[in-house]
Amino acid sequence: MVRIDGRNDETLRDIKITRGYQDWPAGSVLVEFGKTRVLCAASVSEGVPRWRSGSGLGWVTAEYAMLPSATHSRSDRESIKGRVGGRTHEISRLIGRSLRTCIDLSALGENTIVIDCDVIQADGGTRTAAITGAYVALADAITWLGAAGKLADPKPLSCQIAAVSVGVVDGRVRLDLPYEEDSRAEVDMNVVATDAGTLVEVQGTGEGATFARSTLDKMLDLALAGVADLCRLQAEALELPYPGTLPEGKKA
Amino acid sequence: MVRIDGRNDETLRDIKITRGYQDWPAGSVLVEFGKTRVLCAASVSEGVPRWRSGSGLGWVTAEYAMLPSATHSRSDRESIKGRVGGRTHEISRLIGRSLRTCIDLSALGENTIVIDCDVIQADGGTRTAAITGAYVALADAITWLGAAGKLADPKPLSCQIAAVSVGVVDGRVRLDLPYEEDSRAEVDMNVVATDAGTLVEVQGTGEGATFARSTLDKMLDLALAGVADLCRLQAEALELPYPGTLPEGKKA
Amino acid sequence: MVRIDGRNDETLRDIKITRGYQDWPAGSVLVEFGKTRVLCAASVSEGVPRWRSGSGLGWVTAEYAMLPSATHSRSDRESIKGRVGGRTHEISRLIGRSLRTCIDLSALGENTIVIDCDVIQADGGTRTAAITGAYVALADAITWLGAAGKLADPKPLSCQIAAVSVGVVDGRVRLDLPYEEDSRAEVDMNVVATDAGTLVEVQGTGEGATFARSTLDKMLDLALAGVADLCRLQAEALELPYPGTLPEGKKA
Amino acid sequence: MVRIDGRNDETLRDIKITRGYQDWPAGSVLVEFGKTRVLCAASVSEGVPRWRSGSGLGWVTAEYAMLPSATHSRSDRESIKGRVGGRTHEISRLIGRSLRTCIDLSALGENTIVIDCDVIQADGGTRTAAITGAYVALADAITWLGAAGKLADPKPLSCQIAAVSVGVVDGRVRLDLPYEEDSRAEVDMNVVATDAGTLVEVQGTGEGATFARSTLDKMLDLALAGVADLCRLQAEALELPYPGTLPEGKKA
Amino acid sequence: MVRIDGRNDETLRDIKITRGYQDWPAGSVLVEFGKTRVLCAASVSEGVPRWRSGSGLGWVTAEYAMLPSATHSRSDRESIKGRVGGRTHEISRLIGRSLRTCIDLSALGENTIVIDCDVIQADGGTRTAAITGAYVALADAITWLGAAGKLADPKPLSCQIAAVSVGVVDGRVRLDLPYEEDSRAEVDMNVVATDAGTLVEVQGTGEGATFARSTLDKMLDLALAGVADLCRLQAEALELPYPGTLPEGKKA
Amino acid sequence: MVRIDGRNDETLRDIKITRGYQDWPAGSVLVEFGKTRVLCAASVSEGVPRWRSGSGLGWVTAEYAMLPSATHSRSDRESIKGRVGGRTHEISRLIGRSLRTCIDLSALGENTIVIDCDVIQADGGTRTAAITGAYVALADAITWLGAAGKLADPKPLSCQIAAVSVGVVDGRVRLDLPYEEDSRAEVDMNVVATDAGTLVEVQGTGEGATFARSTLDKMLDLALAGVADLCRLQAEALELPYPGTLPEGKKA
Repeated sequence: MVRIDGRNDETLRDIKITRGYQDWPAGSVLVEFGKTRVLCAASVSEGVPRWRSGSGLGWVTAEYAMLPSATHSRSDRESIKGRVGGRTHEISRLIGRSLRTCIDLSALGENTIVIDCDVIQADGGTRTAAITGAYVALADAITWLGAAGKLADPKPLSCQIAAVSVGVVDGRVRLDLPYEEDSRAEVDMNVVATDAGTLVEVQGTGEGATFARSTLDKMLDLALAGVADLCRLQAEALELPYPGTLPEGKKA
Repeated sequence: MVRIDGRNDETLRDIKITRGYQDWPAGSVLVEFGKTRVLCAASVSEGVPRWRSGSGLGWVTAEYAMLPSATHSRSDRESIKGRVGGRTHEISRLIGRSLRTCIDLSALGENTIVIDCDVIQADGGTRTAAITGAYVALADAITWLGAAGKLADPKPLSCQIAAVSVGVVDGRVRLDLPYEEDSRAEVDMNVVATDAGTLVEVQGTGEGATFARSTLDKMLDLALAGVADLCRLQAEALELPYPGTLPEGKKA
Repeated sequence: MVRIDGRNDETLRDIKITRGYQDWPAGSVLVEFGKTRVLCAASVSEGVPRWRSGSGLGWVTAEYAMLPSATHSRSDRESIKGRVGGRTHEISRLIGRSLRTCIDLSALGENTIVIDCDVIQADGGTRTAAITGAYVALADAITWLGAAGKLADPKPLSCQIAAVSVGVVDGRVRLDLPYEEDSRAEVDMNVVATDAGTLVEVQGTGEGATFARSTLDKMLDLALAGVADLCRLQAEALELPYPGTLPEGKKA
Repeated sequence: MVRIDGRNDETLRDIKITRGYQDWPAGSVLVEFGKTRVLCAASVSEGVPRWRSGSGLGWVTAEYAMLPSATHSRSDRESIKGRVGGRTHEISRLIGRSLRTCIDLSALGENTIVIDCDVIQADGGTRTAAITGAYVALADAITWLGAAGKLADPKPLSCQIAAVSVGVVDGRVRLDLPYEEDSRAEVDMNVVATDAGTLVEVQGTGEGATFARSTLDKMLDLALAGVADLCRLQAEALELPYPGTLPEGKKA
Repeated sequence: MVRIDGRNDETLRDIKITRGYQDWPAGSVLVEFGKTRVLCAASVSEGVPRWRSGSGLGWVTAEYAMLPSATHSRSDRESIKGRVGGRTHEISRLIGRSLRTCIDLSALGENTIVIDCDVIQADGGTRTAAITGAYVALADAITWLGAAGKLADPKPLSCQIAAVSVGVVDGRVRLDLPYEEDSRAEVDMNVVATDAGTLVEVQGTGEGATFARSTLDKMLDLALAGVADLCRLQAEALELPYPGTLPEGKKA
Repeated sequence: MVRIDGRNDETLRDIKITRGYQDWPAGSVLVEFGKTRVLCAASVSEGVPRWRSGSGLGWVTAEYAMLPSATHSRSDRESIKGRVGGRTHEISRLIGRSLRTCIDLSALGENTIVIDCDVIQADGGTRTAAITGAYVALADAITWLGAAGKLADPKPLSCQIAAVSVGVVDGRVRLDLPYEEDSRAEVDMNVVATDAGTLVEVQGTGEGATFARSTLDKMLDLALAGVADLCRLQAEALELPYPGTLPEGKKA
């Protein structure tokens, strides 16, 4: 029983990670999970939000958004609606929270890294692609901060973070759902985990139905295997030199 | 090793469910998990949102909010800030999604039930208390709709829904965290489940740390036992007659 | 000619004043005028609004709001509409202005007391109930500030403040209108006054009709008698000890 | 003891009422109370707000606003702040409510008259000037509707409406306060009344102090005399022919 | 071929410039281009926007708005819509940018001049009338600042600025279009220029059609002649003494 | 005197036009003017805005926006600020207005084409790149509508539209300014024109200085030559077959 795109149940879509997609941000990564394409840009700025000021700690946050043209039917622009929708907020918070798990914020000094995850094309799994790409953009921003001499600890990242969706479709547990599967899944779960196999965030939802604990277990098996693959691909991408110009002219 | 309120790790706080707390809504339930108090009111109105109009299906949705005076330090009013925060949106969506899992929307006809969950006092676990109380308010609203002769199917609720938080505090897995524990938990999880022991929603988050899959398993054990207790308490509360006046003067 | 709830024209509804309704605010009072129930919470915070900073004076302000489920038909949530309606603004301003009449703001130091008046159930007269309850919450917050050693003058309250509605219904001048009367009143007036019988605020409105000055006089007679009764009930409620824990462990 | 502008306590400022100030609205009146200048424009449009549709009744409403340059120090523009302030809302509601008292809305058919009261220059008493001018603009709009053949009843106005402020300044009861007096008044009252001497709206406020009922009585005496004068001035202004071009070319 | 108002193609409408229209702002000018009437008020305040703070430079900005009653059919109030429309923004930016071309901002010290251009009546060309009047209001505000001893350079204005519209209507190039012509123009151009005949801003738009470069040339000829006339009228208006009271009692 | 990127004054930057950049919109074009990259997506939807409904005419509109990561320093997200800035509005209106000049809207039937121009990377000239790319996306959307059998006239585009910036930098008139030149230009002009050499829109601005009419003439010469080149590049790009799947399976 093959899936619409020819994969079997436990396989990821084609994953591409392109560093240096833009010229200005400290980290800029285009991540592709099949047709899903998300641009993850990590921008560094001095200072931290007011509530954190004077703490000596840095801050990492994320903003997720979709281009109106990213979806099958054009979606309205949130800037024109004048407010950010609940789903957008929820995903932005998830990305930021996940990334903060892998970084020692005291090493950053009072600097902020904002990671903008803008979905260029949506075909399911945009939030998991965003987290996976955002980690790579964050790693590049850390390299940039290091070259700028702004890190108290040269290795503030304690682990890699990646994410994948998993769900029950047609009664089968499947990894990395495209829109066609996601929109009719009976259960939908997003798992954020580390290269060490520990969990960062687990969000499982019955879509109009409930699910057994044994199903949860099978979904976790698949998701953790998928995250392990994604972490390998992140590591490969990060083996290449820093794609832009580092501060002080120190080429990576 | 006893908890601050004298409970052991696997015990719920004192739970109270008071039906008929307000006079006008079809269902109005004050639910208390220790010092956490949430007013859950289910209001029935004719018609459904525009995107659903003409489908013949009903709609169930929820809105979560906090009184400014509910928290330890007063929080700003979202109506005055002019926008609903990300956390509020996220919890509203969770409550609505969870409740829709247990109801046959085609039985409602094109009627909408809005469940307002307003936190009167917050001491941790407001979202899980809200879901637990909202189910009872929903059940009363269904009774009201039935008395009004508006149900296509007299028993549109397929199961009970309740929720509880669970977390790792001081290295121990604990059930139903009050604010004092929640604010320093290493891992925090909310589990929505049914009286049949199946899962509706699982949201586990490492708070600045990652967690092992075995920890997830222990948390699920505790949470499912807690939900089973909560479902028993819901059932007891619902054994009493409908607390207000039913349409057509048919007293329950 | 008896009223729908059995009262005669010059009688108040059953009034209940419950102090210590919530645990966290310095003052928390549930006030009931018949079925109208308003939760009045007085929260103390350091500092004053920017325009008042450096004056050495404190500030007292109020925010009035209704739970969506408080009204006969559910009303939309102002946080979701993204703006506070004209009526809400008007009542918030009235409550704050009235309370500031009875307090010496220089005695507070640069501290702010915000009084949140959240209507739990609306059956007419919510603004007058709110003012009546807010005074009691304010008195408790003053006790709290005194125990915390933050008052320049130990008795900053110069008088009691209470409020009641009065109107012309079926051609008769009546006190303390419930919704059923308020919605069809020919004239509607809210009177805020002190225990000394002086006036704080008078707002009389012909509802689609004008009214004679002699009618105004009769309404004032009734209202001032009603306020005198309310002040007695406030005083009785305040004879009990402070209902929570005072700062420094000094039990009242 | 003469006032800053040479008046005695019971005298109005110089009042000017200029009809036909603008060319496009059906009624356009510049009203001046001393240096206070308000442009009152009554625009007619077909249809009524949705909640009133199908009732066969017309609607009259008002919007009050200030030019940023109208006040002693420039005030911020509400369109740029993105929301209408509480004071603006409150006054808009007062003007609309007052005008609806003098008109038979069933005579208008399902037409709406919006009366825009834009303060060109503020020197105290802008809301009372606005109501006084708005009545004249409304009268002109009624003439226009009559000429257009859209009135079911040719005389839908049952009385004249005007308004004036009165207050206690330096311990003396004074009529029609300019800003210099208004800003330091101990008591401030706005009275809307008719040419028949009946009351439409009474709003009296102690500004940081309470006031005796006898003071209220004296203020009402002065205010009713002031309104009688204003009604005479309105009537004189309305004796002149309609200042613009009536529909169907019927010159008034 | 005469125009609807009797002018020939290259003539301006009747232009009136009235200084001292309001009492409080440092400059207040009512400018009339035929039936188009715009109130331009220049208010001086200490300090500059945050992004400019510490630069030692002053700031000049403008806000354009229309009264709802200014247009042929009443337009909705932007404060009530809760946001400023694109056209409003665009014109505000144009006015501010144009005026900044003629002033040496370093001469102002860290003071801000806001020029509010509120359209009292609209009949085409409101933005060009606004710029023309705003220059005169700015000149008065400069006189005021000079009298207050706040100018580093007593003559910070390097030239006069005025603006006029020009367009192609009925195939003919015409100057200063009223609404009747503007609404059906094939090409529409606004030209801001100086008394020296140099250009400040040129904005030409084909309205549903394109236009030849030779047409652009003819439009510029007409516009520059019109601006020269407007500058003469500005100069005449400014020959009169300052219309209000200067700081320090120094009458102009 | 060579420019920073090696070009001479009258040369365009490297221009790339990539059709079919996204899979879902009817037209999706990535346009690059040097480092400036704009994604132009034309989405087709049934129906027209309400004010146009029933006219039988179609509608073309545009929305311009920037990714936060597109600029040298990260810019705040307009969706989070809750409103669209003046500059964004102005450019969106310019793009829409320009494109409507080249299309016969009656040929579209009551269908709407929205062209989203999202700036991926900004290095000056984003609005001119957007117009140039948007024309190509519009042409693809027209092909799509034709294949879907929705065009009343098979060739509704009457001409090509492209745009380029021109300015005075270091006293020299230069074509197609990158950010480094744009930010210090003395005069800045954007010219939208057709492949026939006629003008659509001319917007020239003195940046803190005025400019002579002879300068305007030189700028126009350069701009029109630049637009001619851009139109050739558009035509070449459009010679390739439609890059996606046309409705009804008719491959282009």
